[in-house]
Amino acid sequence: MKAVCLLSGGMDSSTLAYHARDRGYRVLALHLNYGQKTEEKERSSAKTIARLVGAEEFLEIDLSYFKLFGKSSLTDRTIPVEPYSPAAEDIPNTYVPFRNANLLSIATSYAESRDADAIFIGVQSQDYSGYPDCRPAFIEAFQKVIETGSRRGDRIRLMTPFVTMSKREILALGLSLGVPYEHTWSCYQAEDVACGVCGACHFRREAFDALGVEDPIPYRGGR
Amino acid sequence: MKAVCLLSGGMDSSTLAYHARDRGYRVLALHLNYGQKTEEKERSSAKTIARLVGAEEFLEIDLSYFKLFGKSSLTDRTIPVEPYSPAAEDIPNTYVPFRNANLLSIATSYAESRDADAIFIGVQSQDYSGYPDCRPAFIEAFQKVIETGSRRGDRIRLMTPFVTMSKREILALGLSLGVPYEHTWSCYQAEDVACGVCGACHFRREAFDALGVEDPIPYRGGR
Repeated sequence: MKAVCLLSGGMDSSTLAYHARDRGYRVLALHLNYGQKTEEKERSSAKTIARLVGAEEFLEIDLSYFKLFGKSSLTDRTIPVEPYSPAAEDIPNTYVPFRNANLLSIATSYAESRDADAIFIGVQSQDYSGYPDCRPAFIEAFQKVIETGSRRGDRIRLMTPFVTMSKREILALGLSLGVPYEHTWSCYQAEDVACGVCGACHFRREAFDALGVEDPIPYRGGR
Repeated sequence: MKAVCLLSGGMDSSTLAYHARDRGYRVLALHLNYGQKTEEKERSSAKTIARLVGAEEFLEIDLSYFKLFGKSSLTDRTIPVEPYSPAAEDIPNTYVPFRNANLLSIATSYAESRDADAIFIGVQSQDYSGYPDCRPAFIEAFQKVIETGSRRGDRIRLMTPFVTMSKREILALGLSLGVPYEHTWSCYQAEDVACGVCGACHFRREAFDALGVEDPIPYRGGR
């Protein structure tokens, strides 16, 4: 069995690649650069994880056209990344318009061309509190698009093993699989020392704290 | 009202842009280059049509990553474009894996960032005899993906006015709208003089012949 794994180099997608391998899949790692601020760090993390997990391919595709659309603090350098706020009810400004449909379309083209059986994407429940393109309804709808729109769509399964899991549960799984978290990167805005306050840092630290495990990456101001 | 119009520069998408304008939409032309053999000619055709139809924007995005996947005679120079054959039952070798989902995902990101109300795509009935990603079921499934996966998905309508029309009906509509077909390009494999035998040429010529109108572009061996 072969699977395309979307691998950003963050905590969730790195755990996902290890999980796919653990389930018996040969891993085709797909890293998509969409012009985000921390891309350089994410790419090197993804490459390292792909090597360590034994991926058969590491394919990187440039989607920096997202910069043309703007509207997101991840891709537009004039919009500051907002710190995580539990009171926020709106979609965070880190939302990139319809990003995941773009990622999944490419992943499906890739899967079809390599006769892969599955596509793994690391969307998880804390994401879809904020991002519409992480919701289970979106994933279900996309599975239907694959079935109707590709040559062998009935054979490509969209796998979202983390969709009902919390970050803490994902981390616990990853620790049991030996994921080298020192080589992963989550922070939305810094590439040397993680900021500790953006949404990605917030949820990552919360998960490590909840398990009483030390996060091996450096944070501004230490722990 | 504002609409993103997918504009390849071919006969259908050029007619589509004129139709959208005729329906009262301000046109945002989106041209996607996916590394196909005739891209240079298609780009210049699309630019000319966008100017003539009075598009407010002409956005071109490079998707030449499709070349990495191969498997299509449109993007792989080692695979010859097969001539049209009415007896063929399989998907033509001009099929690019899951191409239209990639195009529609980008169109949706663009529509969302520009607060557009609609996306026009020129899929038509003769296409879906061969291409899975032109079928009505695929289009319906994609509408659902837009609804569930984007910030204002309930306001972005996917418009496929040609989905039940024949090429001949599309041409008749276009002629009534004054589409300048001399600036459009359909041939899959040549950029100077159309080959006349690929699937795109075959259906285009058949439509002009059926209406008894002369196609203003040059064909190899003349008419």
